[in-house]
Amino acid sequence: MNADDQVARVIGAIEPVDRVAEKAARARQDELVKPQGSLGRVEELGIQLAAIAGVSPPPVPRRPAVLIAAGDHGVLSQGVSPWPKEVTAAMIAGFCSETAAVNAIANVVGAAVMVLDVGVASALPQHPRLRVAKVRRGTADLLEGPAMSRAEASAAISAGVTAANDLIEVGADLLVTGDMGIANTTPAACLIAAFTGREPAAVTGRGTGIDDATLELKTKVVGRALETHDLDLTDPMGVLAAIGGLEHAALAGLILAGAARRVPVILDGVNAGAAALVATALAPESRDYLIAGHRSSEPGATAALAKLRLQPVIDLGLRLGEGTGGLLAVPVVVAAAAVLAHMSTFAEAGIG
Amino acid sequence: MNADDQVARVIGAIEPVDRVAEKAARARQDELVKPQGSLGRVEELGIQLAAIAGVSPPPVPRRPAVLIAAGDHGVLSQGVSPWPKEVTAAMIAGFCSETAAVNAIANVVGAAVMVLDVGVASALPQHPRLRVAKVRRGTADLLEGPAMSRAEASAAISAGVTAANDLIEVGADLLVTGDMGIANTTPAACLIAAFTGREPAAVTGRGTGIDDATLELKTKVVGRALETHDLDLTDPMGVLAAIGGLEHAALAGLILAGAARRVPVILDGVNAGAAALVATALAPESRDYLIAGHRSSEPGATAALAKLRLQPVIDLGLRLGEGTGGLLAVPVVVAAAAVLAHMSTFAEAGIG
Repeated sequence: MNADDQVARVIGAIEPVDRVAEKAARARQDELVKPQGSLGRVEELGIQLAAIAGVSPPPVPRRPAVLIAAGDHGVLSQGVSPWPKEVTAAMIAGFCSETAAVNAIANVVGAAVMVLDVGVASALPQHPRLRVAKVRRGTADLLEGPAMSRAEASAAISAGVTAANDLIEVGADLLVTGDMGIANTTPAACLIAAFTGREPAAVTGRGTGIDDATLELKTKVVGRALETHDLDLTDPMGVLAAIGGLEHAALAGLILAGAARRVPVILDGVNAGAAALVATALAPESRDYLIAGHRSSEPGATAALAKLRLQPVIDLGLRLGEGTGGLLAVPVVVAAAAVLAHMSTFAEAGIG
Repeated sequence: MNADDQVARVIGAIEPVDRVAEKAARARQDELVKPQGSLGRVEELGIQLAAIAGVSPPPVPRRPAVLIAAGDHGVLSQGVSPWPKEVTAAMIAGFCSETAAVNAIANVVGAAVMVLDVGVASALPQHPRLRVAKVRRGTADLLEGPAMSRAEASAAISAGVTAANDLIEVGADLLVTGDMGIANTTPAACLIAAFTGREPAAVTGRGTGIDDATLELKTKVVGRALETHDLDLTDPMGVLAAIGGLEHAALAGLILAGAARRVPVILDGVNAGAAALVATALAPESRDYLIAGHRSSEPGATAALAKLRLQPVIDLGLRLGEGTGGLLAVPVVVAAAAVLAHMSTFAEAGIG
């Protein structure tokens, strides 16, 4: 099956979440042995999980997995980040050897870690944690033309769909987005500016921690990107190809696959937000399968979540990426399901 | 050893947190393979854990435990809650049979659950999860006189110290406060009003979800309690005895024991906040061993955290108690230690 067909098929497979199961879960929350509403947003998360699974109580996730989509970015040549692109590959080596932040946190929350090379510039050594589906060796500079062709964007989405489906096949029941790619907060800001309509300065952040001069340059790059390309928001694939990154495309694929398979997807930070704007533009129903894992300190992340109408679970000022913030939300999401699945009702407890 | 001696001894055993280990952990955060500061408040938590443990990197907690201190309250007769006091015992039965919210969440985060009966009105059946150290069968009505005698307050603190020490002896390395006691948010509001100096209306909340009329009554009860008793803030034991609850006393003991043994203590909600104000009034150094697990939607909880200068880890509108909100913070705290303990440095990764 070619990439365009696979993308069309996964989009076509996405159904609305189950409002009957949602209603049943809401009613059950009020029967459980706790004051009504006393678990706050944990109750809402449980209700969403029931709506996603199509059953109340929802299954309690047992095998969370983070997929770290990785790629490089031609726009790095504009000077938007002080880090060389070689750091993308070096960080992936760390993910594989389990010495990065994402590994430390994944280990605590019991999540599997997989890396998807969808566009790293250099060749990477084989590793069991690494899936290579390189669409191209990094994007082109998005100020010089489209970052990638439509066919490449479609192929990168397709790679994300396939990787997510394979994770689900081996038992993953809660997906977390991760990302790695030096300079990727620049295309993320471009995508978020495009899909939210906000000004470049409102969605462009310091990424790894750039200085004022670099932030000013980066903001101008985002503005010029939006001026350079004749973006048509009714053509999300075209927008993605023009100003996006290969890992954003892959994460959009992960989101679409999760929604099609009724597996909840926890978003990490600003790159996940950009990918979710692409995915929900392609398939609006996919939005209801998403959980905002955290509020990144990147301003674009908050803009994306507002557009997506999602409230973050965690808000601790993280801006690392890799999936770290999304992973911190995993136990809360699992707990939300466990509350519905494992608590007794007032009637069972003989109270009230 | 009598209770007064035990309390004096545990207070005397509390040392300042280790500023050398804290400094070493802060330096290590900047060497780890992530942009400086990019894990936000997770980095600060890791630094605090090093200061508490006295070593950097800090040990990664492996055996968290929640202690649910339980008691009844004479002030219930004023009509501050629609629930009868028998619900305290019924809920404890649920904690023992693992069918309550605290059990569902503790199971997800891998925490042991223990109940400490420090003052439940009724006799409770024996159970391995239940430790009985009943000081009296519920407090007296705090509008009619002191809620308990100074000796009883001291005995309840001592019961919390002993329970916490026993948990630590069997391996608990991260303590979480839990509480159960119908009407206990009223003495919690009294304690918080007393120690923060705020108005009763600013610290009195809906607890289990009382209606407007009951909230008005409850607020008046808190106001009358503060007028009735001649409170001396330089005598925290006297304040606790006059307007507190037995479970607040026990949780103050848990906090003091944790601090004395250099074991971090995660606070749950408004009752934990009240207990922490007592503990830090008795032993100011104990404050640095505390982690605010979450921001309860009870207004008194926010007032207490402000006085304690603590920022909550989780903020999801919970107001259940039992330890539920504190438990949700456990994986974040464990992750904070794991980041410092398990990540490689830039030098080790060959980057930068």
